[in-house]
Amino acid sequence: MSKKTNNEKLTIFALGGVGEIGKNMYVIQYGNDIVVIDSGLKFPEEDMLGIDIVIPDISYLTENRDKVRAIILTHGHEDHIGGLPYVLKHLNVPVYGTKLTIGLVENKLKEANLLGETKRILINEDSELKLGNTLTATFFRTNHSIPDSVGVCVATPEGNVVHTGDFKFDHTPVNGEFANLQRMAEIGSKGVLALLSDSTNAEKPGFTPSERNVGIVLEDIFRKATQRVVVATFASNVHRIQQVVNAAAATGRKITVIGRSMVNVVGIASDLGYLDIPDGMIIEPEEVNKMAADRVVILSTGSQGEPMSALTRMARSTHRKVDILPGDTVIIAATPVPGNEKYIGRTIDELFRLGANVIYSGSNSGVHVSGHGSQEELKLMLNLMKPKFFIPIHGEHRMQRKHALLGEAVGIAPEDIFMIDIGDTVEIQGGVARKAGKVTSGNVLIDGLGVGDVGNIVLRDRKLLSQDGILVVVVTLSKQDGQIVSGPDIISRGFVYVRESEGLLDEANRIVTSTLQRLMSERVNEWASLKTSVKDSLGRFLYEQTRRRPMILPIIMEV
Amino acid sequence: MSKKTNNEKLTIFALGGVGEIGKNMYVIQYGNDIVVIDSGLKFPEEDMLGIDIVIPDISYLTENRDKVRAIILTHGHEDHIGGLPYVLKHLNVPVYGTKLTIGLVENKLKEANLLGETKRILINEDSELKLGNTLTATFFRTNHSIPDSVGVCVATPEGNVVHTGDFKFDHTPVNGEFANLQRMAEIGSKGVLALLSDSTNAEKPGFTPSERNVGIVLEDIFRKATQRVVVATFASNVHRIQQVVNAAAATGRKITVIGRSMVNVVGIASDLGYLDIPDGMIIEPEEVNKMAADRVVILSTGSQGEPMSALTRMARSTHRKVDILPGDTVIIAATPVPGNEKYIGRTIDELFRLGANVIYSGSNSGVHVSGHGSQEELKLMLNLMKPKFFIPIHGEHRMQRKHALLGEAVGIAPEDIFMIDIGDTVEIQGGVARKAGKVTSGNVLIDGLGVGDVGNIVLRDRKLLSQDGILVVVVTLSKQDGQIVSGPDIISRGFVYVRESEGLLDEANRIVTSTLQRLMSERVNEWASLKTSVKDSLGRFLYEQTRRRPMILPIIMEV
Repeated sequence: MSKKTNNEKLTIFALGGVGEIGKNMYVIQYGNDIVVIDSGLKFPEEDMLGIDIVIPDISYLTENRDKVRAIILTHGHEDHIGGLPYVLKHLNVPVYGTKLTIGLVENKLKEANLLGETKRILINEDSELKLGNTLTATFFRTNHSIPDSVGVCVATPEGNVVHTGDFKFDHTPVNGEFANLQRMAEIGSKGVLALLSDSTNAEKPGFTPSERNVGIVLEDIFRKATQRVVVATFASNVHRIQQVVNAAAATGRKITVIGRSMVNVVGIASDLGYLDIPDGMIIEPEEVNKMAADRVVILSTGSQGEPMSALTRMARSTHRKVDILPGDTVIIAATPVPGNEKYIGRTIDELFRLGANVIYSGSNSGVHVSGHGSQEELKLMLNLMKPKFFIPIHGEHRMQRKHALLGEAVGIAPEDIFMIDIGDTVEIQGGVARKAGKVTSGNVLIDGLGVGDVGNIVLRDRKLLSQDGILVVVVTLSKQDGQIVSGPDIISRGFVYVRESEGLLDEANRIVTSTLQRLMSERVNEWASLKTSVKDSLGRFLYEQTRRRPMILPIIMEV
Repeated sequence: MSKKTNNEKLTIFALGGVGEIGKNMYVIQYGNDIVVIDSGLKFPEEDMLGIDIVIPDISYLTENRDKVRAIILTHGHEDHIGGLPYVLKHLNVPVYGTKLTIGLVENKLKEANLLGETKRILINEDSELKLGNTLTATFFRTNHSIPDSVGVCVATPEGNVVHTGDFKFDHTPVNGEFANLQRMAEIGSKGVLALLSDSTNAEKPGFTPSERNVGIVLEDIFRKATQRVVVATFASNVHRIQQVVNAAAATGRKITVIGRSMVNVVGIASDLGYLDIPDGMIIEPEEVNKMAADRVVILSTGSQGEPMSALTRMARSTHRKVDILPGDTVIIAATPVPGNEKYIGRTIDELFRLGANVIYSGSNSGVHVSGHGSQEELKLMLNLMKPKFFIPIHGEHRMQRKHALLGEAVGIAPEDIFMIDIGDTVEIQGGVARKAGKVTSGNVLIDGLGVGDVGNIVLRDRKLLSQDGILVVVVTLSKQDGQIVSGPDIISRGFVYVRESEGLLDEANRIVTSTLQRLMSERVNEWASLKTSVKDSLGRFLYEQTRRRPMILPIIMEV
């Protein structure tokens, strides 16, 4: 299929998605042809204060823009498509994806005013894409917590590189779309040079249960509930939403949809035929209060306890349209993403306090299953593909490591398994693979409209400010004789209650004054020295008195 | 035992420990006699920026100081004894506890210079304490993740109030100290008016496994490890430490102890006879490198990934004495406390990167069991005690709620179960219980040496500062004519990289200048108006340009 070019080599690396959960972006390059798989975002780590989202550093791609043939999307989750609006601003490349994925992408590009200039190409499982002179991409259907997910096989002159996308094996899929085991087996029997496979659940033994199990539990809860039922889940989990619809239909309830992303996804997925909703089933939130309580389902965002989400606002009784009433049943059909445990716990507590019966995954309730395959499924994928080389991707380092052990367990030699961090390249030439150098990679932090203008110094300052606040010390000196004309004035924020700490701040003022007077008598008049001395003497005093280290910002004015 | 005083009533409430995990403090009052059970601290929530620890508001106790007869401690965990140094400063009351508990308390009081003035009284399971005129306390041994844990039975003229402390039922306890089922059954058969019971694991079905199971797993890992073994666990888990000692002895390894709290607890527990360590087993950290790798165990703090802990420093290769070498086995014998998942995950990743084999609880490894009883054990306690009234304590609201359902399941009437928040009082008189008013309660935040001097305004400022930083705008005006003499100068911290945003800050400067000039031409010269206008115009400009809302601090000097 692909012609072999002499002396060229195959290079595989990740710009995001390894050593982390999020901002997935993988690169396959052969000579002058580059294919990018996925373009995701990551939500900020807890030490990235004030940051909204994180995307990969794509310097390598912009420096090689002439070679980039395609961005192929495996599915429509934010950690796979959320970085596109930022990436496409710097790299106008055709974007390939299945119908639902492209539908979700178009919604994003519209908001970013990039729809017109971006070439979008629909693919399906049977598509074959010629990409540049040397690469050909084909696809295989997988099961995941969003419909229309695919894995990618990129044929290169060195051999086939398979990227699984996110997957599980669901033998009773909600939409009847089975993972294409036959296609995977066929790819495997033709020969796979390198497999890049999803490590998310590599720590979990056994099999991940079928999404259909959740439907059975939901219908049972709907049937027993004597009042309204609220279901919060990820907006993108179209299968789950379909099962909520089915359970509502089976129990004679109508559904109202609240939360911006839920309204969006339900709209797009229905329009594109991925959701089958009976006519008249969806009602407006305003109609809820007019209906009998046992005829209503409220489908909502907020399954992670996000502070601004619909469920959180209902829990705090601050939602404009829907209140939680005593006796309502609230189903939180999701597990907390690490870091969100406290938020979701607080939401559950608040719902209980309102008198709701809350059903959540912590209590073994069966209202959620993962979209990622567990250890037995990961081994099944490895055995279907029988790769020569194996690169665990999509996970924190420990998950990649566990996945590597599964690779060894099914018989791949340890030296043929490559543990990579972002930027680490694996080069394959003449059937020999080795870890080569690093390409530029990293986190680009997005804060408001700023892309990459917040870095370590700004974050360090935010961290300092968040711990003990700031004291601003202002003093005006005379140009003539360098004497104090006005001040020192000390203003604090985030340090102590000023009213209760007047004595402390008065004393601080005296210390600054005497420090300045001493320096002047010693004829020190460089501002840098004055500022350093004020910082040191005041910092020492405050630490002794309070054991705190606020940021101290001395400002000297001259008149 | 206790004489009935007419017209008096029994009041039960919590100053901490309900609606939260941490700062346990329960109050039982009959007439002029108050008994306090436990005096814990809580670690700050994620929105309590810069706060070190949190203790209960004890206004009720200081206002009724003459009535407080005792602080009884159920066991030596921080969430039960950690608030003592702060409480005892305001309330000099005798402290009662078992030998290990008092040993740990004395260590704390020494550091706080409170040892001399605090009366400490050792109790054991057979102690009987007359407290004031009306109350008598007796005890029963429980199993928990620290030895010498007890439950308390307070006899009052209204009847017996039982507080379980933290407990599980471990039928094969490591130290051979069984929970005293007979004593509990006896209390139950004499009649329990009200039961206050531990709700921590009320969401978990089944039984919590025996601590002894961990010992078997540890010995197996020690035996298979070909190099050094590092075990990180909670310092206070003396049973776990004993099992590390046993496994080391069985496999011919010596132990070195690192991390301040681990060294402390091992010292105290050995001195008091709670740890049985063979002579010559403990070696200094300096000796580790001289020994064969398969003869060494390193017992360490840091099982929660705490940034300054010994394990975290080893993982980052910044520990002064001990390095992790490729092939070492690291056992993290703990589950993450909610909120710590990311920290511990990062530590695990770093250890893997150093080439260690990391065994942690996420991977079903059997290296940790909980110290709190699961649903079947909670029901067993309820059935042993057969209380008339039931108050679920020690847990988040949702855990108390699940515990209440367990109470209903064993036959307690819903109206006899009391869901309380901190400060909510339950009054019992003539055998009738009702929810009465609230007493003063809340969080006292400790930041450095400051106790309670950081409140909502300071925390709100810290939050604001942490999100988008601060801009300080300084301008000097003339006293004579109100004209600008110097400035405006704008200094930012935690907002943007100044070097890359010169244009933005220059423009900000022009906006401040023109705002001031406009106001002066309109003869506005109140400082408050000037400041508000500068804040508004600059804030609007910055939000338009950056979509960020830094704190803006205008400072006007006059010369």
